[in-house]
Amino acid sequence: MNEVSPNRPLSPETALDTLGTLLPGMPRLRQGEVWIVGAGPGDPGLLTLHALSALLQADVLVHDALIDPRTLALARPEAVRIFAGKRGGRPSTHQDDITATLVDQARRGFRVVRLKGGDPFIFGRGGEEVAELVAQGIPHRVIPGLTSGLAGLSAVGIPATCRGVNQALFLATGHGAGTRPTPDGIDWTLVGRLNQPVILYMSLRNLPFILDGLGQGGMADALPAAVVASATTLEERVVITTKGELLETIRREGLEAPAIVVLGEIVRCHHTLRQVVTQAVESASGQA
Amino acid sequence: MNEVSPNRPLSPETALDTLGTLLPGMPRLRQGEVWIVGAGPGDPGLLTLHALSALLQADVLVHDALIDPRTLALARPEAVRIFAGKRGGRPSTHQDDITATLVDQARRGFRVVRLKGGDPFIFGRGGEEVAELVAQGIPHRVIPGLTSGLAGLSAVGIPATCRGVNQALFLATGHGAGTRPTPDGIDWTLVGRLNQPVILYMSLRNLPFILDGLGQGGMADALPAAVVASATTLEERVVITTKGELLETIRREGLEAPAIVVLGEIVRCHHTLRQVVTQAVESASGQA
Repeated sequence: MNEVSPNRPLSPETALDTLGTLLPGMPRLRQGEVWIVGAGPGDPGLLTLHALSALLQADVLVHDALIDPRTLALARPEAVRIFAGKRGGRPSTHQDDITATLVDQARRGFRVVRLKGGDPFIFGRGGEEVAELVAQGIPHRVIPGLTSGLAGLSAVGIPATCRGVNQALFLATGHGAGTRPTPDGIDWTLVGRLNQPVILYMSLRNLPFILDGLGQGGMADALPAAVVASATTLEERVVITTKGELLETIRREGLEAPAIVVLGEIVRCHHTLRQVVTQAVESASGQA
Repeated sequence: MNEVSPNRPLSPETALDTLGTLLPGMPRLRQGEVWIVGAGPGDPGLLTLHALSALLQADVLVHDALIDPRTLALARPEAVRIFAGKRGGRPSTHQDDITATLVDQARRGFRVVRLKGGDPFIFGRGGEEVAELVAQGIPHRVIPGLTSGLAGLSAVGIPATCRGVNQALFLATGHGAGTRPTPDGIDWTLVGRLNQPVILYMSLRNLPFILDGLGQGGMADALPAAVVASATTLEERVVITTKGELLETIRREGLEAPAIVVLGEIVRCHHTLRQVVTQAVESASGQA
């Protein structure tokens, strides 16, 4: 066993021993098992202890495009990393191929970690992957992660709920919000009438359509809005605006996916707080 | 520095060194600072690395009633633990008193951790505590945690989103949902019309009123529903029922707070998955 020393990197075994000593009942990733693990919004400090434990044990790591490189670096150096991203310049990885890879690697007896940004069960298709593992008889475990729509707001000092302002939140993906109706489609006009904050994932492309619906429901153009791009990563950017100025602000500031959009009076709490909190790991070390 | 050994407990210094070696930029809790930390739903394995780091550094720990004893045990043995719970047999701790304690302990130069169940910014009044710290000039940081309404569903195998089922979630607290209208009140009839899953925190007391409104909005009595009590703790209990049978099921099963109620077709995914996942640390070690 390696000694703990600041002069050389810690071995995964030592780190795992430390976790096991802190929490004696921490489950072990066994050969032939798949753990579907939420990596959280970006900052590796927002990984859970279960997620860190998974990374330290994996033989095979099947990961999304949006995982922070500092998080990937926590896995064992000899772990096989399989990219299963769905964005960027390269062709998309099909969901069926991802699931087939998980099943195949588990059947070969490897300890498999499927690492997904945010939470696997929140706009992440983790449910489909689990269903297929169950159908194929592969033992699995789901490790929830911080979802970017909520942790991303915290990161810039916007409380998702404020006493006297809201008692509810509407979380939605804008990904399927195009002109074609889907069985799981959202009635944006109705949402606009709720008078509760709206938090949108993956909405930049369909935002004009969504804002139109919200406006028809009565959501005022003067309502505060914010965009948090690359939440909790070293590239994090936040802008505060209004519903009416939102599209123009995104264009002018060149904001790109991944981004969380929030519409609601809760955004004003950002001004009250006046401080950006929970910065990414690297930038945080200089904080007073 | 203590050696890592399975035969005696790890010192907080050693554990902190391990974290610091894994993630060199992890921020340090300084004297006179207050960190408002989300402890997640219960299972200490669902703490974030930032939250563990906070516990290992705190001189003073001001904690809620619902924090798992295994989580409290992670803090330094010599840390002063201050109970600031708002439930149980004892008189409630007033929010003003909690905030005054945080300010006072920070001004005395202690490293203060305010540990809250779930996420401090989601139905947790963390925003009020932060606002007061800012007003008093106390340096602070917010560490988001897993919110029980989402992690509690994961824990029992219910994906919060399912492709073809929903593209949105409505999260609400039922705490203020009584007969007296509040400025931040919820129009439950409108929510019943959304046709998206509804996830309720702290709703058991006002559930008859809430269900009535949802029903008037058109939410069918046949809609699947689930209750997750004491999510991810050793006392976790889950029942699957329907909206129409919900009140009777809660009464018959003797389910008590803290509990998350979920109404929506997503609950059916629980039957597809057929497995209870992400158990609490202690019970998980025996899993195949």
